[in-house]
Formats: sequence, C-alpha cells, structure tokens
Amino acid sequence: MKGSVYIGVSLDGFIARENGDIEWLEEFGDEEAIPAYEDFIKKIDVFVIGRGTFETVLSFPSWPYTLDVILLSTTIKQVPEKFADKITLLSMKPKEVMAYLSDKGYSNAYIDGGKVIQGFLNDDLIDELIISKLPILIGSGIPLFGHLDVDLRFTHIKTEVHKNGIVRSHYERKR
Amino acid sequence: MKGSVYIGVSLDGFIARENGDIEWLEEFGDEEAIPAYEDFIKKIDVFVIGRGTFETVLSFPSWPYTLDVILLSTTIKQVPEKFADKITLLSMKPKEVMAYLSDKGYSNAYIDGGKVIQGFLNDDLIDELIISKLPILIGSGIPLFGHLDVDLRFTHIKTEVHKNGIVRSHYERKR
Repeated sequence: MKGSVYIGVSLDGFIARENGDIEWLEEFGDEEAIPAYEDFIKKIDVFVIGRGTFETVLSFPSWPYTLDVILLSTTIKQVPEKFADKITLLSMKPKEVMAYLSDKGYSNAYIDGGKVIQGFLNDDLIDELIISKLPILIGSGIPLFGHLDVDLRFTHIKTEVHKNGIVRSHYERKR
Repeated sequence: MKGSVYIGVSLDGFIARENGDIEWLEEFGDEEAIPAYEDFIKKIDVFVIGRGTFETVLSFPSWPYTLDVILLSTTIKQVPEKFADKITLLSMKPKEVMAYLSDKGYSNAYIDGGKVIQGFLNDDLIDELIISKLPILIGSGIPLFGHLDVDLRFTHIKTEVHKNGIVRSHYERKR
C-alpha cells in the first residue's frame, strides 16, 4: 500500500491561511498544472481526507473526487446521506487505515489535508511527496508539515517549473 | 541598497535544529554548491548577521567572512577585540541598517540568520531570495520564515537541481 501526497504550498510552507482561505493559491492554477495532476492521479485508487478537507470540499460547487474517499474523523459520527455512496467514514490511526485499504484491494492512496498528511508522515507512511511551491510568502496559516519523531530522508526524482513561477518537486521516500 | 538571502533549508523549512545543530545540512555540502555560491557572492559587499549566527560562527575553526560584517544585536554591547577590524556592531532596525549601509557606500547586503531574515522580510527589504531545499524533513527547528504583516510576491528566476537532491530556486521580489 503506497501513500502519496500531491499538494500546493506557499514559499513559507502553508497550504491555507488560518481561516482556510486558499484564494492566494487558486490564482496560480494554470493550464500547465492540469497534465501534471492527471498524470499523477492515474495511479491513485483512493483518497484519504480529514474533517478539515471534507468541510472545505463541501463548499465547492460540486463533489470533486472521482474515486472512493476515506474520511478520517473521530468527531464526525455519520456521513451526510447524499455522500453515503462516495465516502467511507473511519476512525482509525494511519497504520490501521493503510492495512484496511490494502485489505480492501486498494494499492495507492492520495493522502490529503494538513493534519492527515502530518499524521501519515509521522508514521512514515508517505512514499511519494509532490510539492508545488508557489512564489508567495503569506506569513502565517495552516502548515503542510509538523512534528516528526525522526528525520525522514527523500530522494529527489524531478523538478518542473511553470511559467507563473510554480516549482513542483517530486520526491520518493529513501528507506 | 539591495538585500539578498542565500540559504539552505530542510524540506519542512528549518535552517537548524532547535539547538542550532546543522550537521544534517552540512552532509549535503557538495562540489556543485561551490560555483553557485561563488557566483552569488561576487555581487555582495557586506554581510548582515545577528547574535545567533555570530555565536555559531565563533565555533567555526576560522572566521568565514571575507567581507565586512555588520552584527545586529541589542544585547551584545561590545565586539571581542580580535574581531574589531572585521565587525561593526549596530543596534538598529532593518530600515535604519539599510540606510546606514547605503550611506557607507555599500550596495548589496547578504542578510543572514533566521531572526534577521524574518525582520528584513517583514520590512520588505529583501530583493533576492535564493533557497537551497534539502531532501530531508527534520520535524522541528529554527524556521527560515516568520510572521509577515502583508503577503510578499516573488518572481521565479531559475531553479537548479544538484545530483544529491538539493533544489535551489532563485526569486526576485515582485514590486
């Protein structure tokens, strides 16, 4: 079971402002971003998100996920009925989630959202890390990375640069 | 008066561990790093450092700076005599420092050290930002970036990749 992260961050490492605002990030969405994402998503067969990402996504005009979604939460007790066929609600630790997904026949999970990514990294369950760095400092917000019990080394695979200044680096976990 | 930053950071944005340790960073020092730094340093005519960097540098086998050094500190009252010809001690705010340096005939300052860089960024005095991103997460430490009163946008100039996985991106302040 492989865990992958594909995310955009400010130059100072934030995925959103404190209040969840990602307008500063969306303005860097460009045509160059589409083929890279499509190439990445081909290998993914399940999304793993947390409550924060779920609540952000609920404000979108339509449900953005085209694959099964695992919602990790200890506070949400039931998924709204309209999402019942799209979402599996789990209250498990990262390692248990990966074992569960493997049992269900999945092979590559997209791990999304700050808290969820941090938890999976701290349990060393992220094999692939693809970070699109935007050329803007926002000073504060929700950080991509958090505490780790031990250092994690990665192998740099490739870096692509967009015309609008996005620098996207692909890393694989060095074990 | 131009302010430049040239610094190495972990993938999660730290310039040193909490205790100042940079061993994890030094192991990525390679031959590819030398010409890039030499090319950069040609334009620099003065270094601006804070107490933290000064104390780190004191533990080095020899004084590493080949140009004049400005030491910014409100707590250090006098420079040790052996450094009297190398260091000017100032207790000024970033804008005052830049005006002082311009008056003295300098044109391009290397702004170094976490706290000092953060102060100069918050006063929008950094024109050039060159960040060497190392392929390692260390989980905690002294952060490169800090609070900003407003967003700061940069233009991406170029990105270079080393064989050992360092990704060095050059940015210029977009005004």
